[in-house]
Amino acid sequence: MIVAMQESASEEQIQDVIAELMRLGFEVHRSTGVQHTVLGAVGARVDFDIREIEVLAGVGHVHRISVPYKLVGRTFRPEGTKIGFRNGLIIGGTAVVVMAGPCSVESRQQLFGSAEVVAKAGARVLRGGAFKPRSSPYAFQGMGEDGLKLMCEAGEKYGLLVISEVMEISQIELMDPYVDIYQVGARNMQNFNLLRELGKARKPVLLKRGISATIEEWLLSAEYIVSGGNYDVILCERGMRTFETYTRNTMDISAIPVCKSLSHLPVAGDPSHGTGRRDKVAPMARAAVAAGADSIIVEVHCTPDKALSDGAQSLYPHQFAELMDQLRMIAPAVGRAIA
Amino acid sequence: MIVAMQESASEEQIQDVIAELMRLGFEVHRSTGVQHTVLGAVGARVDFDIREIEVLAGVGHVHRISVPYKLVGRTFRPEGTKIGFRNGLIIGGTAVVVMAGPCSVESRQQLFGSAEVVAKAGARVLRGGAFKPRSSPYAFQGMGEDGLKLMCEAGEKYGLLVISEVMEISQIELMDPYVDIYQVGARNMQNFNLLRELGKARKPVLLKRGISATIEEWLLSAEYIVSGGNYDVILCERGMRTFETYTRNTMDISAIPVCKSLSHLPVAGDPSHGTGRRDKVAPMARAAVAAGADSIIVEVHCTPDKALSDGAQSLYPHQFAELMDQLRMIAPAVGRAIA
Amino acid sequence: MIVAMQESASEEQIQDVIAELMRLGFEVHRSTGVQHTVLGAVGARVDFDIREIEVLAGVGHVHRISVPYKLVGRTFRPEGTKIGFRNGLIIGGTAVVVMAGPCSVESRQQLFGSAEVVAKAGARVLRGGAFKPRSSPYAFQGMGEDGLKLMCEAGEKYGLLVISEVMEISQIELMDPYVDIYQVGARNMQNFNLLRELGKARKPVLLKRGISATIEEWLLSAEYIVSGGNYDVILCERGMRTFETYTRNTMDISAIPVCKSLSHLPVAGDPSHGTGRRDKVAPMARAAVAAGADSIIVEVHCTPDKALSDGAQSLYPHQFAELMDQLRMIAPAVGRAIA
Amino acid sequence: MIVAMQESASEEQIQDVIAELMRLGFEVHRSTGVQHTVLGAVGARVDFDIREIEVLAGVGHVHRISVPYKLVGRTFRPEGTKIGFRNGLIIGGTAVVVMAGPCSVESRQQLFGSAEVVAKAGARVLRGGAFKPRSSPYAFQGMGEDGLKLMCEAGEKYGLLVISEVMEISQIELMDPYVDIYQVGARNMQNFNLLRELGKARKPVLLKRGISATIEEWLLSAEYIVSGGNYDVILCERGMRTFETYTRNTMDISAIPVCKSLSHLPVAGDPSHGTGRRDKVAPMARAAVAAGADSIIVEVHCTPDKALSDGAQSLYPHQFAELMDQLRMIAPAVGRAIA
Repeated sequence: MIVAMQESASEEQIQDVIAELMRLGFEVHRSTGVQHTVLGAVGARVDFDIREIEVLAGVGHVHRISVPYKLVGRTFRPEGTKIGFRNGLIIGGTAVVVMAGPCSVESRQQLFGSAEVVAKAGARVLRGGAFKPRSSPYAFQGMGEDGLKLMCEAGEKYGLLVISEVMEISQIELMDPYVDIYQVGARNMQNFNLLRELGKARKPVLLKRGISATIEEWLLSAEYIVSGGNYDVILCERGMRTFETYTRNTMDISAIPVCKSLSHLPVAGDPSHGTGRRDKVAPMARAAVAAGADSIIVEVHCTPDKALSDGAQSLYPHQFAELMDQLRMIAPAVGRAIA
Repeated sequence: MIVAMQESASEEQIQDVIAELMRLGFEVHRSTGVQHTVLGAVGARVDFDIREIEVLAGVGHVHRISVPYKLVGRTFRPEGTKIGFRNGLIIGGTAVVVMAGPCSVESRQQLFGSAEVVAKAGARVLRGGAFKPRSSPYAFQGMGEDGLKLMCEAGEKYGLLVISEVMEISQIELMDPYVDIYQVGARNMQNFNLLRELGKARKPVLLKRGISATIEEWLLSAEYIVSGGNYDVILCERGMRTFETYTRNTMDISAIPVCKSLSHLPVAGDPSHGTGRRDKVAPMARAAVAAGADSIIVEVHCTPDKALSDGAQSLYPHQFAELMDQLRMIAPAVGRAIA
Repeated sequence: MIVAMQESASEEQIQDVIAELMRLGFEVHRSTGVQHTVLGAVGARVDFDIREIEVLAGVGHVHRISVPYKLVGRTFRPEGTKIGFRNGLIIGGTAVVVMAGPCSVESRQQLFGSAEVVAKAGARVLRGGAFKPRSSPYAFQGMGEDGLKLMCEAGEKYGLLVISEVMEISQIELMDPYVDIYQVGARNMQNFNLLRELGKARKPVLLKRGISATIEEWLLSAEYIVSGGNYDVILCERGMRTFETYTRNTMDISAIPVCKSLSHLPVAGDPSHGTGRRDKVAPMARAAVAAGADSIIVEVHCTPDKALSDGAQSLYPHQFAELMDQLRMIAPAVGRAIA
Repeated sequence: MIVAMQESASEEQIQDVIAELMRLGFEVHRSTGVQHTVLGAVGARVDFDIREIEVLAGVGHVHRISVPYKLVGRTFRPEGTKIGFRNGLIIGGTAVVVMAGPCSVESRQQLFGSAEVVAKAGARVLRGGAFKPRSSPYAFQGMGEDGLKLMCEAGEKYGLLVISEVMEISQIELMDPYVDIYQVGARNMQNFNLLRELGKARKPVLLKRGISATIEEWLLSAEYIVSGGNYDVILCERGMRTFETYTRNTMDISAIPVCKSLSHLPVAGDPSHGTGRRDKVAPMARAAVAAGADSIIVEVHCTPDKALSDGAQSLYPHQFAELMDQLRMIAPAVGRAIA
């Protein structure tokens, strides 16, 4: 931590800050310049709140030197994390993995219809929500465990792995027999109790970025899972809240290359939630792959007009097939292929 | 719902949209103008996703006519909600109620010291967190039920009601014997399962605005609680995430008069989280009262330098006393007094 | 315009709103429902400020039905605008046009060195700033007309068209002999006096999006130019201001397909200002083309380490050449080629 | 400047960074820790772009130690700036100065009517726009110099100073005989050429914050004026662009106390543009004064329903009089009075 004193700071104020830093367990180096005195404080706890120092009299600015995450930083594993699955699929390797399926599991017919469509077009992972707490108390709330069973069965039949969203600690164990990847939604990105439990799980976690989370906060949430012992975390960009209202969210494509630099974890993009509009999903899926995403996760419904949730952002089967063809052309430009 | 077709929309597209609206249960009125055809659709379910119509061919814009909340709207109870407590205190009446206390309950000495200070200066409700899931797994995690017991005891001793944050459904029952008001934090504003259970609780709920929640989303979350039968909800502004980084958040003072117009619920302001800096708490507390807040909730610690969490935004006892004096001068300008 | 009255609106309030609308020249249609009265007002001037109605007593919501721009709307020219140049180059056609060059013209050697590099790699337009008003009064302020002469000469020599930024009305005429495209920077997007004069110019204008401008405001600014008679406007996304601070701005890649839907104008992307970091320029340039951009504009410097401005976001020559190879692979995925 | 190298940085990378810093004229201090090497670089030019260092290989973070503004910093003039006028009025002193008047000068009758109203209620400065470049080319564009003459005359008659917006360099001289304060609008906050010329003016400048400007950028713009020799700058908060759309902008009340800490310049608040809605102007004006503003500037129109611009945010005469009474009650709470 670097503490830059104000130009007008008195010697007494400087001494008080030094004393406080030492009381907090830091080793302090002082450097007195013409205009400023700058204090270097070594030995900070990762969770130290720098505002404790900022509010002391005479302090100008305080800067953390070390990043607040360790285990998910690129330095920790420079070669990058590759997550392997039972069927040989790898996320974080050369091939880009496409996950697709409906927003919610609604019925056997709907799920199997959608699974067949996405498998045929080249997806490798089936997505679908079983628990759907909605902003309205009257909306469809999901099929629960029955939905998970259908997911598992459809995955088997069409050779797809299964990803589904976990929303509460109690669901982790319940979901375990059915899913290959736990998905953590944007609203739960800072549900630290849930993250802690997922740190003990033995299955990969796809961690969506909160709509108003900075990249640093997102990596800190990933650190929470990894520090519990589960290193298989996939980061997933799905749109930020900005002043622009034409799209539901603003998908931050640049977060993909940024996370690839800062962290060794694989990075995915979700153009369905990232835009909220079917007609913008394909352009943003292509952009994500062109920007270096390791995976994309897309909502596809066999009959979007009849979807019980988020039909407006679900691709039609033929749109998804066309998108897959485009992605197969783009991937080689970044030295990759579609898995 | 109003559906404005594009200027270029064909008659066939218009007919398709009408058919879809009718299939969804709407009654449709058509108005054909020189440039546009506009469709009025009556009978929408409150949770209808307008994007379902927006993505249809030929559609220009879709506007919801009715607000998506009903029970919390000002129309529903034009005279405003007054929440009464066992000791006669009223929130939402003429008097402005000040809630104060430490961020977390840390020890008997710290809590009682802080309670004494705030009671003496004129606060009527004691705040303090018992559960503190923190962004770092190594930080202080709160005293749990022991903390609640201390809160209850300190409240008794100093004549203060008690408010504390509830984070999980399982805590509702646990907290019931100890608290007068349940606080829902910004991160849980859209934890709909928790909101639904609080709708069944028989105690008031202070609902903080999420840092990236629009006012409409916030009112929808309040609607969730109220629709469960619990009408005693207090809205609490505590800062939005914006591009400005000097303050931790940007406290949206204008949300106070806006909510007072849109809703009958009492509105509070939290200048401690709204700014994150001790030296900005008093100005923003004054601003909140001047703008019409029914209540403010402020972090005060008997010895902020030794606080285990958020010490940097906690007021010193003498600062709080001075603030109370200022608030007593400001309240009459808006026709009120401090409770 | 649709005016939805509040549920509680009195008949007198409704009559007052109707009278006001008629006074303003609207034709009014009334529709009285069970809950709401809704008024349709036809004949609005494009610049009508809907807040005039919003603040009337009893009014709930007011929605504009027609978009506030006409000439730049897709409906006006469904086939899209193609901008042709003296050397046969077309922007807005099948081929994607790459513009590249240094941030500022600094010297003959620097400019010609950079121009050679970008021409060789396949750029078709040379970019470079001659006027550089900087946030610090002590920084390099640009070469002015001498810089423009160098641009023109270098363009001739390497077969490149020339684009440069215009900042004041007085520069329009001065620049005319030297440039093929006028660039309007983000800070001038709402400099309406400048836009009006450019509406009279007989050369294309590349209009950058302001860092906090909505897409609608951006299109309105384009409308300003087009309404003056100059239809050759290129929209250019260059990053929004958001809460994320890791990148200088958040480049809104989704604005590219959105503008292609809403407007007939060509759309470009500027990944250099969009990210502010050299190492993120190539991923975002690829993303822009994958999302459907008609053009990209990239900062390239023969020796970025010695650049007098924005060297940190300028590509090295070999990086630009590599990027061009990647773009040539991506373009066919969207049915295009690099010009 | 502090350069924190990455944990994985090689000795060669460290040496390269040191060499580059020295080439740029810095004196470099090296501190090698267990995890990091940290370089302290002394002697930076105020306008140095730290990204030049950030993009070097092996660099982790770069922090500026000194603030980029000097002359407007609180340290430079700890007692605060008081701006005195010909009639003895002081802005930045104990008394809070209220500026009021219509958005635009529309006619003699309208201006004199409004001036009388605001003078009677206690305003000391008359506001009104003479130049009104509008987002639509068809809207009212202002009365120009004739409007300024009316302002001057009305100011004389009712004992008010005069403030009006300057939009182009050419207007500075034109306005000089008529106005007491130049107003720089939000869109021109970074029009550095204009700011530079105002630095040579001998009259105070009220500098509005851009809707997406950080506080630091705003202070840098003030520095531009002050560095030209004109120390009489008033900062004016008028609303930021955020994700919330209910209000036109989000007025950042906290910017008032923040600027009072960081700078010695007086700080004003503009609740009319800050909210865009008449019914929210009074609450936000009260909040601004309660938070410590030295001045507020409010739109008041003798007949708002007939205003040619921004009528929806203009107060009625009786609303303004009532607001003044409220402000007179609030000011003493912060140790002040209304001028």
